[in-house]
Amino acid sequence: MNYPLFEKHRARLEQATEALRTRGYWSAFAEMPSPKSYGETAAADGKRAFEAHLGKTFELAQPGVTGTHAGERSPYGIQLEVAYPVSDPEALIEAALAAMPAWNRQGAEGRCGILMEALDRLNRRSFEIGHAVMMTTGQAWMMAFQAGGPHAQDRGLEAVACAWREQAAIPGMAVWEKPQGKNPPIRMEKHFEIVGRGVAVVIGCGTFPTWNTYPGVFAALATGNPVIVKPHSNAILPAAITVSVIREVLAENGIDPNVITLAVAPQRTATQILATHASVKSVDFTGSNQFGNWLIENCRQAQVYAELAGVNNVVIESTDAYRAMLKNLAFTLSLYSGQMCTTTQAIIVPSQGIATDEGHKSFDEVAADLAAAIDAFVADPKVAHAVLGAIQSQDTARRIDEAHQYAEVLLPSRKLVNPEFPAADVRTPMLLQCDARDEAAYMTERFGPISFVVKAGNAQAAIELAERITRDHGALTAGIYSTSAEFVDAMVQATWRTKVALSINLTGAIFVNQSAAFSDYHGTGGNPSANASYADSAFVANRFRVVQRRVHA
Amino acid sequence: MNYPLFEKHRARLEQATEALRTRGYWSAFAEMPSPKSYGETAAADGKRAFEAHLGKTFELAQPGVTGTHAGERSPYGIQLEVAYPVSDPEALIEAALAAMPAWNRQGAEGRCGILMEALDRLNRRSFEIGHAVMMTTGQAWMMAFQAGGPHAQDRGLEAVACAWREQAAIPGMAVWEKPQGKNPPIRMEKHFEIVGRGVAVVIGCGTFPTWNTYPGVFAALATGNPVIVKPHSNAILPAAITVSVIREVLAENGIDPNVITLAVAPQRTATQILATHASVKSVDFTGSNQFGNWLIENCRQAQVYAELAGVNNVVIESTDAYRAMLKNLAFTLSLYSGQMCTTTQAIIVPSQGIATDEGHKSFDEVAADLAAAIDAFVADPKVAHAVLGAIQSQDTARRIDEAHQYAEVLLPSRKLVNPEFPAADVRTPMLLQCDARDEAAYMTERFGPISFVVKAGNAQAAIELAERITRDHGALTAGIYSTSAEFVDAMVQATWRTKVALSINLTGAIFVNQSAAFSDYHGTGGNPSANASYADSAFVANRFRVVQRRVHA
Repeated sequence: MNYPLFEKHRARLEQATEALRTRGYWSAFAEMPSPKSYGETAAADGKRAFEAHLGKTFELAQPGVTGTHAGERSPYGIQLEVAYPVSDPEALIEAALAAMPAWNRQGAEGRCGILMEALDRLNRRSFEIGHAVMMTTGQAWMMAFQAGGPHAQDRGLEAVACAWREQAAIPGMAVWEKPQGKNPPIRMEKHFEIVGRGVAVVIGCGTFPTWNTYPGVFAALATGNPVIVKPHSNAILPAAITVSVIREVLAENGIDPNVITLAVAPQRTATQILATHASVKSVDFTGSNQFGNWLIENCRQAQVYAELAGVNNVVIESTDAYRAMLKNLAFTLSLYSGQMCTTTQAIIVPSQGIATDEGHKSFDEVAADLAAAIDAFVADPKVAHAVLGAIQSQDTARRIDEAHQYAEVLLPSRKLVNPEFPAADVRTPMLLQCDARDEAAYMTERFGPISFVVKAGNAQAAIELAERITRDHGALTAGIYSTSAEFVDAMVQATWRTKVALSINLTGAIFVNQSAAFSDYHGTGGNPSANASYADSAFVANRFRVVQRRVHA
Repeated sequence: MNYPLFEKHRARLEQATEALRTRGYWSAFAEMPSPKSYGETAAADGKRAFEAHLGKTFELAQPGVTGTHAGERSPYGIQLEVAYPVSDPEALIEAALAAMPAWNRQGAEGRCGILMEALDRLNRRSFEIGHAVMMTTGQAWMMAFQAGGPHAQDRGLEAVACAWREQAAIPGMAVWEKPQGKNPPIRMEKHFEIVGRGVAVVIGCGTFPTWNTYPGVFAALATGNPVIVKPHSNAILPAAITVSVIREVLAENGIDPNVITLAVAPQRTATQILATHASVKSVDFTGSNQFGNWLIENCRQAQVYAELAGVNNVVIESTDAYRAMLKNLAFTLSLYSGQMCTTTQAIIVPSQGIATDEGHKSFDEVAADLAAAIDAFVADPKVAHAVLGAIQSQDTARRIDEAHQYAEVLLPSRKLVNPEFPAADVRTPMLLQCDARDEAAYMTERFGPISFVVKAGNAQAAIELAERITRDHGALTAGIYSTSAEFVDAMVQATWRTKVALSINLTGAIFVNQSAAFSDYHGTGGNPSANASYADSAFVANRFRVVQRRVHA
């Protein structure tokens, strides 16, 4: 067969595959929302396109529509009122199964070509998607554009490249010729068909509706599976745009668009019915431990790829760049008001304090200086709003309100008024301090801008605590500040046991909560915070099967 | 680090990796037990080495030994009386965990070098292992040598190559340099450490103690996991020899030999305690549905790779080589008395009969001719003994005795006396016939030399039945005989849905129950007979994690 879209995007796919092999810096999509990259009118066009969705019914032409559902509440307080078609789950499954054989027959080349074209189209709609992400999640604009647009697209492309690499390693056919001494050889012709496992369900979260969804969507599609996207009930619009773009590319290429559909499920029971359906063979999930573990426990018919909660931690043992360290941490804790699955929650400091380039700092000084650094960082309202965004959910707002009960307050959270969005719930980060023994306070995820400076008996105890937190409660990120190579090495070895990505002595413009596609693995899949990684070969290899046939040649 | 064993075996590893990429014929180990390949004295030396184990205690120098256990019953009726050390499961786990960090630090190169050296040593002991396999499983000599020795070693090497390919795709380090316009780039140095998931338990079966065990053992070891081998209680010797050889190579290279240990567990509860242990992160299993499903249900802390039972099936619609087809099937049904997980059980024939190169054959003619072909094949006692071997378990013997109750007997099973081993329980294949509706008869695995000619309404119904059997009960192999390209294509498409390997019109020296390493995938992992395949990338990719660290460069 001939796959013009594969040929069109082949060079980029090869670059992406090479980037995975070397893991240096590489990105396919421009991260700056500049006219140079996106065109002079892109910003205005994208905003208009976003606004055109508001107050309307989002058309998807899906099967089994039983009604519509609206109800997204913008953390910025604007009225969204987009109504989405609600499809009967059984109808979506049937449509997915009907679309699957032809999708399989496209082969890896056909599928990758179409998916890369879709990623290109999504990229061109990054402003529209950025606004949709911003207004549904409460992210500030720059993050919403970058993480919601180009960075999410990069993660999607990474999944495609990873899936491509695994599938390209399997030949379509082979001639097997076994020598028989003086007799003629035995010759068999063998064909190897790659087939998807079955229907894939991808369940999105409320904070990163594209970044955390694209890996599963594109990995499942690239390996031959039809996908049903079940977005978080408060972040449907970014998913709906994504699904509509992919459906459009499918239809243009003569493929049943029901290879991907949107499941708007106002009730959790509808999601449960979908995820446990016998025809569903994989479930990708980002969200709470509670529902994630329910899925793992109950979706026995499917492979579940789950990113759950954790208690991300940083150990501070010593530093030769005290101010830069504090600034780096202050930014990490402020970014999107700590509403990232990678934000540090426990900052572990030895009770004796630490050696720094500004002399010895006691535990109390470190704690107070960090509080001051955060306070200074969010002092300028312009900076604060550009970084904090708004509080995504009322649960997070409630946690902030209650947090003073957890431990001693070093820095209270303040409410800010965003002049552009007066109804937005904007909060500055809250910093608490406690003893390592006060496990009830800090050793459970406190999602949002709530962090703890935790006092450990000594430096060795700090590492041991970090290791235990990660082993028992999980972590997507860990950090270490130390000028001792030996101490860093001890922390490195601890992370090999607990399987968590480590950032060492971050003092510049890289932050522990950032993860770059094609280079940083997001999660390892080896501790309770996630059972999968964006994107290693395990993330794609189990999504397809090879079915062979052989015949005498 | 420097890995001399990796350098020693690098060329072969590259050949093996290339073989996986092309899937043509390739084998690393000579399959004929000839002096030319193995040396003039190899046969006699190997037999002597096997005999030297009998009546003795097998020394392994393992930790936590609480006593010894003997009790293997040879299907050939000879006295084995080998006593094996029984180690406390907790002691084996602790020893495995203690050995794991240094095994991880060997990296993929270090591990693959050592494992390939071990495979070489195992190959040199193929005669000894062949006798051990023959005498514990009841396989005839040629199969015991080939499947137990070189073919098992090839499957082990295949797993190593597969694991190597996945790990070699991950760079040890990278410099990540992100351009910043006119400012200097941000530079990060990143390191990527491959770490095993944890302790691996590999549970062997009674019929193929090496062939079905080596893939899991070598895949787990190659990806950084210590392995505890739990052999079937009646096929311990081949596993014990294997473990001792690998331990020897580890120790010679300064590595803690407890990277691999043998768990002789006379009680199933001991195996259950081992497999459900919190430190055990993978379980490889070959055996019954009952215990396999128990493992899948209960080993929630581990990834379970299970090969279970199925109902392998062949559809006969038409043929242009009637006699050759019958001969091919007769051999398939006779080989190791049908005690292969790949042996055909249901031979589905349309009620109207089939077109052949000898004219139309009615259903009854096909059934009778197949019975006659089997009878003729086992008529010569020399051929019969060389192919049938002996009945491995008393359960199988009981099933043969009871099989006449299941359906109408086309060919009864006969007991043969093997003059060399008068106490061996030797049985010829039993062929029954029934209607497709008699599902209770043929639609459950009847392990052993018991097969059914099943009468389907018509050719289309035959395919539909084959599809349903595989979908609901699983199959590792399927076959089709047809001269119609259209009909073959319909069967091919059915196998894509049920995910089973298909053999088309086998009439020569290749049989549906044979699977060659580096070319044939054994199982697809996509139907109830197995959730994994020897060996695709899914078989190795989830056995390790990548833990990264990054620091400003």
